[in-house]
Amino acid sequence: MTNKIIENLKPLDIEKRSFEIISEELAEMGVVLPKDQEMITKRVIHASADFEYADTLIYSDTAIETARRLLGEGCIIVTDTNMARSGINLKTLEALGCEAFCFMNDEKIAERSKVTGETRAALSMEHAAKVFHDKPVMIVSGNAPTALLKIRELYDRGEYRPDLVIGVPVGFVNVEAAKELIMETDIPYIVNRGRKGGSNIAAAIVNALMYGICRNV
Amino acid sequence: MTNKIIENLKPLDIEKRSFEIISEELAEMGVVLPKDQEMITKRVIHASADFEYADTLIYSDTAIETARRLLGEGCIIVTDTNMARSGINLKTLEALGCEAFCFMNDEKIAERSKVTGETRAALSMEHAAKVFHDKPVMIVSGNAPTALLKIRELYDRGEYRPDLVIGVPVGFVNVEAAKELIMETDIPYIVNRGRKGGSNIAAAIVNALMYGICRNV
Repeated sequence: MTNKIIENLKPLDIEKRSFEIISEELAEMGVVLPKDQEMITKRVIHASADFEYADTLIYSDTAIETARRLLGEGCIIVTDTNMARSGINLKTLEALGCEAFCFMNDEKIAERSKVTGETRAALSMEHAAKVFHDKPVMIVSGNAPTALLKIRELYDRGEYRPDLVIGVPVGFVNVEAAKELIMETDIPYIVNRGRKGGSNIAAAIVNALMYGICRNV
Repeated sequence: MTNKIIENLKPLDIEKRSFEIISEELAEMGVVLPKDQEMITKRVIHASADFEYADTLIYSDTAIETARRLLGEGCIIVTDTNMARSGINLKTLEALGCEAFCFMNDEKIAERSKVTGETRAALSMEHAAKVFHDKPVMIVSGNAPTALLKIRELYDRGEYRPDLVIGVPVGFVNVEAAKELIMETDIPYIVNRGRKGGSNIAAAIVNALMYGICRNV
C-alpha cells in the first residue's frame, strides 16, 4: 500500500502517472496488449483498478476500426443505463458530432415493462432498433444482460443488426451467457467475458475509443 | 462459466437470484458479514461481481446508524461525479426527501480549477462545505481522491466536518492514502481500502443504505 501523498499534481498529471503505473504493472505481469487495444484496455483498468480486464476484454477483429468509423461519422450511442451515459465525456462526444441516448427512464417503456414483464433494458433496445434503424448505432450495455439478449433476438429474427456492440454488463444471472451470445454473431463487438463489467467500464471503453480520435477535456 | 440462459425471469427475480448466488458463494468462501453491513457489502458485490469487496469495505462503528439517521432526516448527498449521482435511485431518494448534488460541471468551479490548478473535485467539496455547512451532509466520493484530501484538509483546519463520508474512489495515484486519511478522522465513514472503488460502487452503497429504509423502484 502506498500511503504517501504525492503533492501538487495537476489533474492531467494524475492521469498520466496512473497510466504509467498501469503500464509498469502490466509489464511486470508479462502482459503485452495488442497496440490498437492497448489504450482501451488500459482505460478500463484505470476505471476499475482491476487488472483482470487485461485477460477478459475481447475485441472482435473489426471492432476498433468499426468504432472509429462510427465515431467519425457522428453515430448514435444507446446505453442501457443513465449511469453509463453520464460517464461518457460529453464535450468529446459533441466535438465528434455523436449523440448518446438512454431510454431507461422513458415512461412508456416503464409502463410496457409492467405489462409485458420484460425488462426496461430489453424494451429500450427494441425501441432503439425501431427509431434508429437507418442510423449508425453503437449499443453500449454496462448493466443489463437482457439488453444483449434482446439484440441477439432481433438479430436472429433478421430485424436488426447494430453496427457495434459494447457488451460489458455485470452480474450473476444470464450475464456470461448473454455476452457469449453476442460473440457468436457477426456484429463487431467489444465484450468483457465473465461476470465483470459495469456502467463505469462501458463509459471507459466509449471514452477511450473517442480519445483515440480526439480529446476535448 | 454458466452458459445457459434462465428464461422468463422478471427484473426483481433476477435481482433476488443474484443475491442468492452472492450469499451462496460468500458462504462457500467462509465469509460471514456483520448483519448490519451485509446488504450493503452484497450490493457492492452485485454491482461489481468482485468478491474482494467483502474484505476491503470498512465501516466505522457508527457509519450505518449515522447513514440511516441522515437519510431519514432528508439529508444532502454530494457526489464527486455525475455518474455516481445518476446511479443513485432517484425515486427512493425523493421518497426519503433527500437531494443529491454534483458540482463537477459547474462552470465557475471549472474556471477556478484552471486558475488554481486544483482539481474540480477538490473545489466541488470546498463549495459543498460552504453552501451546505448548516445541513446534514453525506459526502460520496467514487472517483477523486482529491475530494477526500480536501475534506481532510477542511477537517484539519476546523472548517468543515461532514456527517458521513462514503470514500470509494478508484485509482492509482493518492487513492489509497486519501482513504486512510479519512479513516484517521472521527468522521463516520464507509471506505473501500485499497485501489478499488468507483462511481458504480459509490452509488451501490448509497442505494443499499436507502433500501434499508425504504424502496421505491
